Amino acid sequence: MAHKRIVIVGGGFGGLTAARFIRQAEVVLIDRANHHLFQPLLYQVATAALSPSDIAWPLRTVFRSQPNVRVIMDNVVSIDRTMRMVRLQESPPILFDCVILAPGSRHAYFGHDEWEAAAPGIKTLSDAVQLRERMLLAFEEAERQRAATGADSHLTFVIVGGGPTGVELAGALAEIARNSMGPDFPTLRLQTVSILLVEAGQRILPAFSPRLSDKAARALTHLGVTIRLSSPVSAVKPDGVRIGQEWVPATRVIWAAGNRASPLLNTLAAPQDSSGRILVNPDLTIPDDPCIFVIGDAAHCRSNEGTPLPGVAPVAMQQGRYVANLINRTMAPEQRPAFVYADRGMLATIGRAKAVAQFGSLQASGFLAWILWCVVHIFFLIGFRNRVRVMSEWVWYYLTFRPGAKLIIEPPSNPPHKAAQ
Amino acid sequence: MAHKRIVIVGGGFGGLTAARFIRQAEVVLIDRANHHLFQPLLYQVATAALSPSDIAWPLRTVFRSQPNVRVIMDNVVSIDRTMRMVRLQESPPILFDCVILAPGSRHAYFGHDEWEAAAPGIKTLSDAVQLRERMLLAFEEAERQRAATGADSHLTFVIVGGGPTGVELAGALAEIARNSMGPDFPTLRLQTVSILLVEAGQRILPAFSPRLSDKAARALTHLGVTIRLSSPVSAVKPDGVRIGQEWVPATRVIWAAGNRASPLLNTLAAPQDSSGRILVNPDLTIPDDPCIFVIGDAAHCRSNEGTPLPGVAPVAMQQGRYVANLINRTMAPEQRPAFVYADRGMLATIGRAKAVAQFGSLQASGFLAWILWCVVHIFFLIGFRNRVRVMSEWVWYYLTFRPGAKLIIEPPSNPPHKAAQ
Repeated sequence: MAHKRIVIVGGGFGGLTAARFIRQAEVVLIDRANHHLFQPLLYQVATAALSPSDIAWPLRTVFRSQPNVRVIMDNVVSIDRTMRMVRLQESPPILFDCVILAPGSRHAYFGHDEWEAAAPGIKTLSDAVQLRERMLLAFEEAERQRAATGADSHLTFVIVGGGPTGVELAGALAEIARNSMGPDFPTLRLQTVSILLVEAGQRILPAFSPRLSDKAARALTHLGVTIRLSSPVSAVKPDGVRIGQEWVPATRVIWAAGNRASPLLNTLAAPQDSSGRILVNPDLTIPDDPCIFVIGDAAHCRSNEGTPLPGVAPVAMQQGRYVANLINRTMAPEQRPAFVYADRGMLATIGRAKAVAQFGSLQASGFLAWILWCVVHIFFLIGFRNRVRVMSEWVWYYLTFRPGAKLIIEPPSNPPHKAAQ
Repeated sequence: MAHKRIVIVGGGFGGLTAARFIRQAEVVLIDRANHHLFQPLLYQVATAALSPSDIAWPLRTVFRSQPNVRVIMDNVVSIDRTMRMVRLQESPPILFDCVILAPGSRHAYFGHDEWEAAAPGIKTLSDAVQLRERMLLAFEEAERQRAATGADSHLTFVIVGGGPTGVELAGALAEIARNSMGPDFPTLRLQTVSILLVEAGQRILPAFSPRLSDKAARALTHLGVTIRLSSPVSAVKPDGVRIGQEWVPATRVIWAAGNRASPLLNTLAAPQDSSGRILVNPDLTIPDDPCIFVIGDAAHCRSNEGTPLPGVAPVAMQQGRYVANLINRTMAPEQRPAFVYADRGMLATIGRAKAVAQFGSLQASGFLAWILWCVVHIFFLIGFRNRVRVMSEWVWYYLTFRPGAKLIIEPPSNPPHKAAQ
């Protein structure tokens, strides 16, 4: 398959890994952003601990020394299976011999797209920076209200979804409120700040063992987070959520529940599951087309036990490498071994020096799991520079409790007078 | 003057310094941003070398350990001299015994405010991040056009204004184009990238000696910048500028010429100069009001030689300290010594390892001046963390030529399909 052209849609973990390992073909990597994003640490940008440039890396720089890879920054409009081309919004269409679709997913609001404005989630750097500004502005607004009325104003952050993102956000918010906002706002009484983690199921971190779910819940509670289980949300407004018959007022609502695969996949006319993911063959291709691959959280792929693989970075990276290997070895469809996910375990962090880890039957929690979490995340960060920066931010925060990026860059409105910086 | 209330408007160099040194009074520091910005390095954020959090510091964190200082994030609407209060947009008005106005300035377009959209300048973090994205997107657009037409598309950055900001921006842009964008865009031919520095006067860096202006011009030319002197701009559009009768097409126009003091000063009803600055008394007060001070680039203050002091950080900082001292010592107007600016020299950097420096009759240029520039800027950065981060970014860039923050966070438009990160 030498000199063939492979088009990769999406520069996330799956697409990036595939592009790195394809050696014998021309690769065109298309992403609407100009950077690869280390999404597992995105919640730390949203909570002001890290800066965007700490966890993102320009795709063109990543592939500087790989001359067979061309990067295009554009939006993919559709995949034309008949014409064998990818249609782009701004650029001319790109013909392909094979295409690897790794377009990722966005939040899903269970059919209530109108909830998005009231309860944004975090998938992109822009999402995270906006969440950071909304969070910091909430404290500023509460301070102004206290000054105006003389009374405490209550600050409630509601996080919907008790998966890893929700848990990590809740823990980080509780810590920043206590350790960083407390000293910044001398009149702030910490009792007036509530962080509520709302989960529809019966426990948080359902992918982990019940024992670790319980440890995580206790650690969050200790940090001051209120956890509400078996609490599906039935309405979301900017000032609160409805749980059953109860209205829960909120200063900010953050969405960390449910994903929906990229709508680009709809243009394939291939079978999809209820969240829009493509039901792929064992070799990650779509039915009747051995040269169209779908990987990462855009693919519905089952493990040996028959459960769908989770939409996490290790799955996407292994799939990217698997597909690159098939392409490098120009394997005919009937020769191809099925993709098998090697589960190396799961990690979730709850706060400074607290995490849970699960590796098959092995489990760990607390400081040891947190060190492990730090090591794994530093290891997978791309590039020496980002490793050093993130590690130094963490050491700084560990020692000082002061997150490094509490900036409101975009002022909330156009002021009548542009006062000083 | 113990237990009096001093209101400071603006957390730039002047306001921040005043707040730090006032010890015996209650201080209320008001800024529309939540951070102090190290403006001399803002051009490095605009050219992707530094991240916003490297050069900004939350005001509340700065004043954590100074209990007499209260920080309010809000827009100041007016100064009410009769009622002795500062009126705010969101918060209740604040009564004052003394007020120190340090609201800074914005760009001035010589009466052509409509030029601002076509040629934004950099004063805030938001300005700098937007300029960075516009700059990076220009390269992406040129790449797309090359792909569509097969022909080179020319990329011209026009910088209007040959003062320190214009010179530093031009040098940084030339370097990023050559050393960083070149390797990122394999099809980019550097001859197609032009950087044009347009100055109305007869030389760049007019505040420096003619010899250093000349050195700076030669260093810029060596980096590939085209300098046009005696070239006042008579029209600005998004796709170019008019110089005399000549139309100069441009991909991006950046404004680095002319400032206008904050319109807040108009509410004082005190004499102003042609760029809106208040004509202050020798003790930096406004006429007939010994407790209203104006400092920084909002004040028109003359040196011993009778020339107006430049709008630079050292002037603002010395003025802030001077006013703090008057207030600490509760000096009656007739006792007050006049403010005297101790000129410690000027520095401007042209690129990696090149700068010009002038200290009275002493002059330096090249590597030595650049090292001095680095040391001075690192020294004045607030906080250990920022010093370490900026220094490490500079060492990294010095060694690798790779700037650390080439991120487009805000995608240019809403895409039809939200593809991957």
